[in-house]
Amino acid sequence: MNKIEHIGIAVKDMDISCNLYEKLLGTACYKKEEVASEGVNTAFFKTGENKIELLTASTADSPIAKFLEKKGEGIHHIAFDVEDILAEMERLKSEGFVLLNEMPKRGADNKLVCFVHPKGTNGVLIELCQEIK
Amino acid sequence: MNKIEHIGIAVKDMDISCNLYEKLLGTACYKKEEVASEGVNTAFFKTGENKIELLTASTADSPIAKFLEKKGEGIHHIAFDVEDILAEMERLKSEGFVLLNEMPKRGADNKLVCFVHPKGTNGVLIELCQEIK
Repeated sequence: MNKIEHIGIAVKDMDISCNLYEKLLGTACYKKEEVASEGVNTAFFKTGENKIELLTASTADSPIAKFLEKKGEGIHHIAFDVEDILAEMERLKSEGFVLLNEMPKRGADNKLVCFVHPKGTNGVLIELCQEIK
Repeated sequence: MNKIEHIGIAVKDMDISCNLYEKLLGTACYKKEEVASEGVNTAFFKTGENKIELLTASTADSPIAKFLEKKGEGIHHIAFDVEDILAEMERLKSEGFVLLNEMPKRGADNKLVCFVHPKGTNGVLIELCQEIK
């Protein structure tokens, strides 16, 4: 775990929330991207060495649609930057953490990602992400 | 807003969660502190330029006790480092955000803090914090 890469926030309306977070953070959204395989639209803001990622559902069965229905808008996950995602996945498994995907998958922002089950991390959904070079 | 200063995570049992986050982050807790005025015990971990702050309730009417009862364990707030908390509070008010305290108050880790109402930030509790010099 090198550092926090981004914090993901689930929102209902991307235009409204982009405008809101531009005001809050005092900086403009620098990238919008759809991750069709995950059923999400994303928007990114830079803050220090981290990013804020806004997430909306692009399909009815998107994980974000389910999250919004169950919990409403709010913080969805914390993503940590890792050098070697496979090694970090092995390390976490050996420590007893449960991974939500057995192999890294393609995420937003040119990353390989893996999620850690929130039941083993005090209810916090953790994402590992490794930059694709 | 300079950068994310820390992410606050509400947990039930500090010893269990400290052990868990030491394994997750691969780094030891470097500070524990009670903030009696807020009814919280805190434990801090460094990750990159940010910190993870674990929070437990130290009193029955602590905001963390209420959060745990209502939502269970999980991410409680995102704190942003600011140079001048009074100026940032004024800026956010002028942008239409609602502050939860009208004057900065003393927080953990030698900080002046102010919270922004989550109803105006997509359900995310935002903390502003300025280092006390």
